[in-house]
Amino acid sequence: MRISELSRVSGVPVPTVKFYLREGLLSEGVRTSPNQAQYDDSHLQRLRLIRALVGAGGLSLATTREVLRQVDEPAELTLAVLGAAHAAVSPDRPEDVDLTPAVDLLRRWGWAACLTAAATDPGQVDDALAALAMAVTALAEAGFEIPVDTFDTYADAMMQVAQAEIARIPTESADAAVRYVVLGTVLAEPVLLALRRLAQREASAARFPPSSEQP
Amino acid sequence: MRISELSRVSGVPVPTVKFYLREGLLSEGVRTSPNQAQYDDSHLQRLRLIRALVGAGGLSLATTREVLRQVDEPAELTLAVLGAAHAAVSPDRPEDVDLTPAVDLLRRWGWAACLTAAATDPGQVDDALAALAMAVTALAEAGFEIPVDTFDTYADAMMQVAQAEIARIPTESADAAVRYVVLGTVLAEPVLLALRRLAQREASAARFPPSSEQP
Repeated sequence: MRISELSRVSGVPVPTVKFYLREGLLSEGVRTSPNQAQYDDSHLQRLRLIRALVGAGGLSLATTREVLRQVDEPAELTLAVLGAAHAAVSPDRPEDVDLTPAVDLLRRWGWAACLTAAATDPGQVDDALAALAMAVTALAEAGFEIPVDTFDTYADAMMQVAQAEIARIPTESADAAVRYVVLGTVLAEPVLLALRRLAQREASAARFPPSSEQP
Repeated sequence: MRISELSRVSGVPVPTVKFYLREGLLSEGVRTSPNQAQYDDSHLQRLRLIRALVGAGGLSLATTREVLRQVDEPAELTLAVLGAAHAAVSPDRPEDVDLTPAVDLLRRWGWAACLTAAATDPGQVDDALAALAMAVTALAEAGFEIPVDTFDTYADAMMQVAQAEIARIPTESADAAVRYVVLGTVLAEPVLLALRRLAQREASAARFPPSSEQP
């Protein structure tokens, strides 16, 4: 198909498609004349992936590029690859984060793999650990202390989520596995956050019955 | 304290403090001369709150303003207020979102309060519902289907999180309740996402033992 049809089918405007081509996120089509190129289903799928990452995933262009690179060039499937895939989709963090509040929580829960990695190969878990430490510090600084048993509930709930996700990592190829981890990490985040808000609504309705709204 | 000390104690540079003053996020101090003003602990706490929202919370200036407005001017505590507090911290959404994929999931789980609100007062749950629908659609478009039993796990986990959170809403004043909902929604999100990644790491270590990394 030509670029105009690629645009129509994908719903992405032609100038945006051209922008992705220039930025190298989308590969060039097959030239049929100096001013025309043909695109196929692989271009359409890629365009949909880019749109999912930039749109619902809310990723920056730079992070989208890194995610696509991980998906395009998967290494052998190891814990290191999973760590790198995670790191690719993690926000940059300041250099001087105090990891103590996060490490204390991991110790409390006995999350040994994270603690071992933090001690022996900090690069592997640093980003998530730093994100946790920064978030806990920010809560304290905002005067909003989460009780430790709520943290326990958070940890239990996220472990259930993670176990279900990891159990489904495809192992037939490193390609499929890395794609699953990178895309699953990014694209499922808005699902989880939206579900939390809807679940809060359900739980609120039980605690604050609607009849009290109209006295 | 003077602005220089407010800056030093809070770690926020003086030009940034002045920016927040100009933008009305931080209230003016008490003038002691045409060029000087005195600030107190309430300014320090507010500055820490702004920093938490903008920093770890990752909010835009406009959203931060809206969150602070909700915290400053809480109405009577009702489900409507909780909904408004949620809406204040939700991203804008396009007009033409197809809510069907989200409504189908809510029906599956019997989340009656959300379904009733979606039918009778869409403004109350629209943002979270639209976010869920967009995220599910984005996953499908990226060619990344989450099996329905993984969605069930997500819903169960988020309901545990929400029940623990809602059970702790302070009810002694609407002020405290709205502050809790607004800040808890925004500031706990990075905690949950970081915990998911760390839990994935724990679950990965069990499924892909580290010994296989160094053959």
